[in-house]
Amino acid sequence: MAQILKGADAARIIKEEIRTTIDSCSLSPCMAIIRIGSNDSDIAYERGIRNNFDSLGICLKIFEYQEAISQEELEQEVIRINADPGIHGILVFRPLPRNLDESRIASLIDPAKDMDCMCPASFARLVMQDPDGYAPCTAEAVIRLCEYAGVDFDGARAVVIGRSLVIGKPVGLLLLSRNATVTWCHSHTKDLAKMCRDADILVSACGSAGLITEEIAQHISPSCVAVDVGINFKDGKMCGDFDFDAVSRFAAKITPVPGGVGAVTNTVLAAHVVRAAYKAAAGKNLRL
Amino acid sequence: MAQILKGADAARIIKEEIRTTIDSCSLSPCMAIIRIGSNDSDIAYERGIRNNFDSLGICLKIFEYQEAISQEELEQEVIRINADPGIHGILVFRPLPRNLDESRIASLIDPAKDMDCMCPASFARLVMQDPDGYAPCTAEAVIRLCEYAGVDFDGARAVVIGRSLVIGKPVGLLLLSRNATVTWCHSHTKDLAKMCRDADILVSACGSAGLITEEIAQHISPSCVAVDVGINFKDGKMCGDFDFDAVSRFAAKITPVPGGVGAVTNTVLAAHVVRAAYKAAAGKNLRL
Repeated sequence: MAQILKGADAARIIKEEIRTTIDSCSLSPCMAIIRIGSNDSDIAYERGIRNNFDSLGICLKIFEYQEAISQEELEQEVIRINADPGIHGILVFRPLPRNLDESRIASLIDPAKDMDCMCPASFARLVMQDPDGYAPCTAEAVIRLCEYAGVDFDGARAVVIGRSLVIGKPVGLLLLSRNATVTWCHSHTKDLAKMCRDADILVSACGSAGLITEEIAQHISPSCVAVDVGINFKDGKMCGDFDFDAVSRFAAKITPVPGGVGAVTNTVLAAHVVRAAYKAAAGKNLRL
Repeated sequence: MAQILKGADAARIIKEEIRTTIDSCSLSPCMAIIRIGSNDSDIAYERGIRNNFDSLGICLKIFEYQEAISQEELEQEVIRINADPGIHGILVFRPLPRNLDESRIASLIDPAKDMDCMCPASFARLVMQDPDGYAPCTAEAVIRLCEYAGVDFDGARAVVIGRSLVIGKPVGLLLLSRNATVTWCHSHTKDLAKMCRDADILVSACGSAGLITEEIAQHISPSCVAVDVGINFKDGKMCGDFDFDAVSRFAAKITPVPGGVGAVTNTVLAAHVVRAAYKAAAGKNLRL
């Protein structure tokens, strides 16, 4: 049976690095959340970030606006927050209300402060492997979990199922930048089981409960690290894309849902804010 | 033996589309080349573009500068050309002389005029599948050749060997956007022959003569379209990455070097200029 990779364990290591960096570099990292309205899921998400940031000594400023805010007003706010040297990172809660042009707002975020790869310039940095860029936090959390699992990316065969802009594509690009051989599968892939043959790294980010069956899992390498990025609800319970029991029988290591990738994402976000604060203070990049 | 896919034949079809579009929309497309100095290869490249553009009725303006031009002067020139409404596209000849900051120049090009995906915003558009964007001409030429060969991209297994920013990555992203299942191989890939198993589309863009041997080619699908983007010189003769005879024995269709992808690239460039001119005139995108 596969070893279970707990996100909290991987996050703990990153948190230690963050604390050490903040102390040794005397940083006062600060991130702004831009939130329109106050729906329950946004508030829960914000609470999770606040708890994590509080424990790490990272400042969080909430910029909350009424749903009636105009496009122009919100744009002015983004520009104002961009220009504030005391704020190192920005996270805009999505989706924005329908009356607002989300892609225009995204494009206004200074890429140096874009903590979750929302603006086009950040995507360009991702493709171009520009060390100034910040990858989407969830995608980077996948990499962090693989690192925690001791994966040697170089020449590894990685199979990424899903090609969304927030997870699938960035995970594939990050794996490629680490010299893995990457295959992207998706809903149009003809023989998914066959495509997973000998996978050393299997990442599923489809949002389809039970998609990764025993039939698929049996093709992966016995040393495979299987990372489940799916978030689904089945019979009222949260689950991932994996048939967990089936994948566990074939993989060497597996991430659970909940408690896997999701438990690392907020800590990657914190690491981004610390990197941005370091860059602002020291003028150079920090590997964190 | 594989059918040989001549670039000139694929280009002819695109040229017909270009002529029809220019006529029916009464366009006067115009592209600027920004060239520093006048080395032989730049001059030859420029002549190739001019011949093609002349035959299609596309205006070409050459902005030639001395190698001694300063960064600031060149930046002002790019800004000036960006602002000229009579110029629909810009192509900067690379590499720039060492004293110039190429990435800064690239980032100044208006993405609406960036004909060969040089600026970061164009890369972002490529990843985000933004229809306003222009892919690198050579990468798009690969797709055009596959279309000419009658490839059904949907669910096809594509193997791209090489991951450069100008060819490998963009070709993979373009294939992915057309619903192919894409595997990226490169110098760190462990068993290239095995990775090519059942490939319906095989693209090599490594710049390594004879890299694709019989041992690799024997794994591809009998219906495979094999596209060679390599440009190498062996014994004084130009050749691609394929062992042409070996790949010919296993593929259904194959592009030669020279006379394959290279013969389509300039026509894709022309199509980009026409698309940009149409967009400037009509305010909407043209599928060309």
